[in-house]
Amino acid sequence: MASQEKIVLGVDPGTATTGYGIIAKKKGIETVQAIEYGVIVTQKEFPLSERLYIIYQKINHLIENYHPTEVAVEEIFFNKNSKTAISVGEARGVILLNAAMQSIPVFEYTPLQVKQSVVGYGRAKKEQVIYMVKTILNINEKKLTPDDVADALAVAICHAFQSGTNYTYV
Amino acid sequence: MASQEKIVLGVDPGTATTGYGIIAKKKGIETVQAIEYGVIVTQKEFPLSERLYIIYQKINHLIENYHPTEVAVEEIFFNKNSKTAISVGEARGVILLNAAMQSIPVFEYTPLQVKQSVVGYGRAKKEQVIYMVKTILNINEKKLTPDDVADALAVAICHAFQSGTNYTYV
Repeated sequence: MASQEKIVLGVDPGTATTGYGIIAKKKGIETVQAIEYGVIVTQKEFPLSERLYIIYQKINHLIENYHPTEVAVEEIFFNKNSKTAISVGEARGVILLNAAMQSIPVFEYTPLQVKQSVVGYGRAKKEQVIYMVKTILNINEKKLTPDDVADALAVAICHAFQSGTNYTYV
Repeated sequence: MASQEKIVLGVDPGTATTGYGIIAKKKGIETVQAIEYGVIVTQKEFPLSERLYIIYQKINHLIENYHPTEVAVEEIFFNKNSKTAISVGEARGVILLNAAMQSIPVFEYTPLQVKQSVVGYGRAKKEQVIYMVKTILNINEKKLTPDDVADALAVAICHAFQSGTNYTYV
């Protein structure tokens, strides 16, 4: 019997593309395994409400299939472009709702925390994050595209390696 | 038998307070009636995901009880404070999802369109909007507080009086 597992669903939400990554971490073992990852793409031609419903359904499907015990998302902030902020917020609201409906706790990390955890350096570049995500999860695919997938896996890794109370519950 | 009714659920979303107003308009009759209105308040102490779930459940309850045929929301934009934009977006995403899950179309209006429709003047002040909402719906309560309730009723009125294709489907 495997020791108790933490199954983390990391999500990088967006109304057009939502990246997701599910990883497992066995208790007491300092490695993580990728279970499933990918991206939910919705078409601009669809009404926004239906695009959000598509995201909801796909995330629901992932939850039902892989039974994540925790959800991890990156804290978002924008200096400009509040239109993007609203749009990301809409997709994010759907993800958080999804988790709450299934009684799965959600944890939030700043980009600094994610980079610190994955690369060991809070100001790491995007390429370094992608490289480390591939290395940690032993993913051989040349590219993890779009970036949303790597970002979702990165925040999942960040959460998998947290212990204690070093995180924000949202 | 009453002639075919349009039952509009207007919503002014926010993670802390979400105003809602349900109004009915009979076909061919140029008046509207308030059916139900109020505000959903969620406590800051709760995790955000659970607050969104509370909003979802209450809106769902309204839909099941009053069977709105259409949902109306105001288009939002912010010049500053993207934190607020994300937060409003999260609640808005839940409302839109809710409507899509129940196959109710969602219509969106700019603040200018709402004021034009309710007050007859696109740059009307908040007090004028509240006054006209009370007059149109024959609501005697001294105050329609918080503003979110009047705003939700205002966008519902705006939509109830639209005809043809003069709106944005979101």
